Amino acid sequence: MPHIISSLDVDLGERSYPIYIGQDLLSDAELFRRHIASQQVMVVSNDTVAPLYMQALVDSLHGMQLEQVVLPDGEKYKTLDILNRIFDGLLGYRFDRGCTLIALGGGVIGDMTGFAAACYQRGVNFIQVPTTLLSQVDSSVGGKTGVNHPLGKNMIGAFYQPQAVVIDIDTLKTLPARELSAGLAEVIKHGIIKDEGYFSWLEAHMQDLRSLDAEALAHAVKGSCIIKSRVVSADEREAGQRALLNFGHTFGHAIETGMGYGNWLHGEAVGAGMCMAARMSRLLGWLSPEEETRITALIEAAGLPVTPPDLSPGRFMELMSVDKKVMAGQLRLVLLKGIGKALISEDFSMEVLQETLQSYTA
Amino acid sequence: MPHIISSLDVDLGERSYPIYIGQDLLSDAELFRRHIASQQVMVVSNDTVAPLYMQALVDSLHGMQLEQVVLPDGEKYKTLDILNRIFDGLLGYRFDRGCTLIALGGGVIGDMTGFAAACYQRGVNFIQVPTTLLSQVDSSVGGKTGVNHPLGKNMIGAFYQPQAVVIDIDTLKTLPARELSAGLAEVIKHGIIKDEGYFSWLEAHMQDLRSLDAEALAHAVKGSCIIKSRVVSADEREAGQRALLNFGHTFGHAIETGMGYGNWLHGEAVGAGMCMAARMSRLLGWLSPEEETRITALIEAAGLPVTPPDLSPGRFMELMSVDKKVMAGQLRLVLLKGIGKALISEDFSMEVLQETLQSYTA
Repeated sequence: MPHIISSLDVDLGERSYPIYIGQDLLSDAELFRRHIASQQVMVVSNDTVAPLYMQALVDSLHGMQLEQVVLPDGEKYKTLDILNRIFDGLLGYRFDRGCTLIALGGGVIGDMTGFAAACYQRGVNFIQVPTTLLSQVDSSVGGKTGVNHPLGKNMIGAFYQPQAVVIDIDTLKTLPARELSAGLAEVIKHGIIKDEGYFSWLEAHMQDLRSLDAEALAHAVKGSCIIKSRVVSADEREAGQRALLNFGHTFGHAIETGMGYGNWLHGEAVGAGMCMAARMSRLLGWLSPEEETRITALIEAAGLPVTPPDLSPGRFMELMSVDKKVMAGQLRLVLLKGIGKALISEDFSMEVLQETLQSYTA
Repeated sequence: MPHIISSLDVDLGERSYPIYIGQDLLSDAELFRRHIASQQVMVVSNDTVAPLYMQALVDSLHGMQLEQVVLPDGEKYKTLDILNRIFDGLLGYRFDRGCTLIALGGGVIGDMTGFAAACYQRGVNFIQVPTTLLSQVDSSVGGKTGVNHPLGKNMIGAFYQPQAVVIDIDTLKTLPARELSAGLAEVIKHGIIKDEGYFSWLEAHMQDLRSLDAEALAHAVKGSCIIKSRVVSADEREAGQRALLNFGHTFGHAIETGMGYGNWLHGEAVGAGMCMAARMSRLLGWLSPEEETRITALIEAAGLPVTPPDLSPGRFMELMSVDKKVMAGQLRLVLLKGIGKALISEDFSMEVLQETLQSYTA
């Protein structure tokens, strides 16, 4: 039986939308129909998730013109070229402007489907159905959509909001443990940047989360969605506060690019990246050694790497200089003045950054 | 010497932008610099226009980091694949979010550059420098950007507004006569749908326009920009009134698709398409025979085709059914209740459409 445990609204004026969190929601026909405007529905998924969950959606949307595009699974397929398969499907089935796209999968499927929805006939409706913890707490909130380019991650995209996000936490039962940990990286991030109370709750419940305790998972998904949606609502276009969500990501993107997309999971790179940002904050004298230790310990308890891979400091600097966060040559990083107190800063010497990178090469 | 003859503002709230119309404006360094935020400028052009006008822009923007992407000229290159060359250039030169793209060329370059600007790092600045009459009066106003798909024209794109539009009418001196006529199709359209007085002025000055009389051209460009920007300001997202600008376009797109992109110029297809829409309006009893004759005569005086190519009515219907304007299977067309009085209607029998198509097959 479908059961909505909780819901929240992401407040973006006329582009506001609800997030539903619950169990067996893929079978909640009424919930989906409430957010679908016409009979034309395209479900975009990948070849890992579709065999597990497509049928439940097909059953729920019985009677509509439901078509499917199943893409190969993996970050390396998050390209303009593969995106075009969604357009091929939409045009091949003669979908019009009133159609609805449903993203059934993780962050890659969500980002690509959202971007396809943003661009198809200059904008159609879409619904996010994130099936990984990472996408449930991160990419389904905030409207960032897009694809990668060989020279940089997420370099081609749009800000585009869904009609609704349907989070069925039952889908986490089939998620590999390594991907669960990757999702926990973003959960921990939300505590680190904005809410020490939430961080402490995570310290107390990390083992419950890793063993898929339903109550704990629902609490964490909701808690993270609330923190992220609050940040996004205040700053939809990433001019200011929203950039705090990039905590650990400048280091993390450098790791992902340097290692080749897909070798490290995004969440794993962010896990190590957050440790690096915490280390740098401590070296700047902004964060206490005890706080750095708590951060590193929680990331480790989540099953994530706490040190970067073997990339030279020079290579790291090179990789960081093509990052989106670089404004006119000046490197800006999200750093910490304490747990729950992140800030965006370019007020540091490059020596401290060098020292941070060097500290991992010993 | 650069000389701004006139300017107007397209009023879209925080996305408003100015249109400058004048002579030798490519040399107006101050004008460009006013709308460029950082040192990174990418000029996107094609291999016809770049040899003629790139150097003037390079001179005007001397001292900035000016890079170029020169695409092959033609509608058939308006694809996702060719679009990627712009992203390759932007990333290859490490352009950041503060960069500015300049579209130097006709509608294809404007649409592709605008779409690239909309998507690069989820949105950067751009300036339109339209060098064809068509793009000066049409595609540079209104924020429609995008690329074609083998199954439909402009099916992938975004609504995205430039920082400014710089219209240098001197560039029309190198425009082939056939393309000038194609641009006049849109000029005539503006009179037909919204302003009988403007239509009458065009009847009186068509030969001046075709012989490149500077005063007449500046008047027509401004007149059309004002009509179009007024329509667009009232309805940025094409929910209602903006669809009037599609007058002649549903028929025209069917012609373009049926003949293969690039064989008929867009303006030529729209010229014939407007004659067809006028014919259908007359057959519905909404337009007088005299008005149909005036419309057809003015389109012919502009050097445009007034009858469709040899496509069967059945093929026409098929081609029209994949058009963006088809909502849930119901065909909506822009039709006329008089010159200057266009309306969007689905209140007609398919027999009248058939009769219209048949009237050209005798």
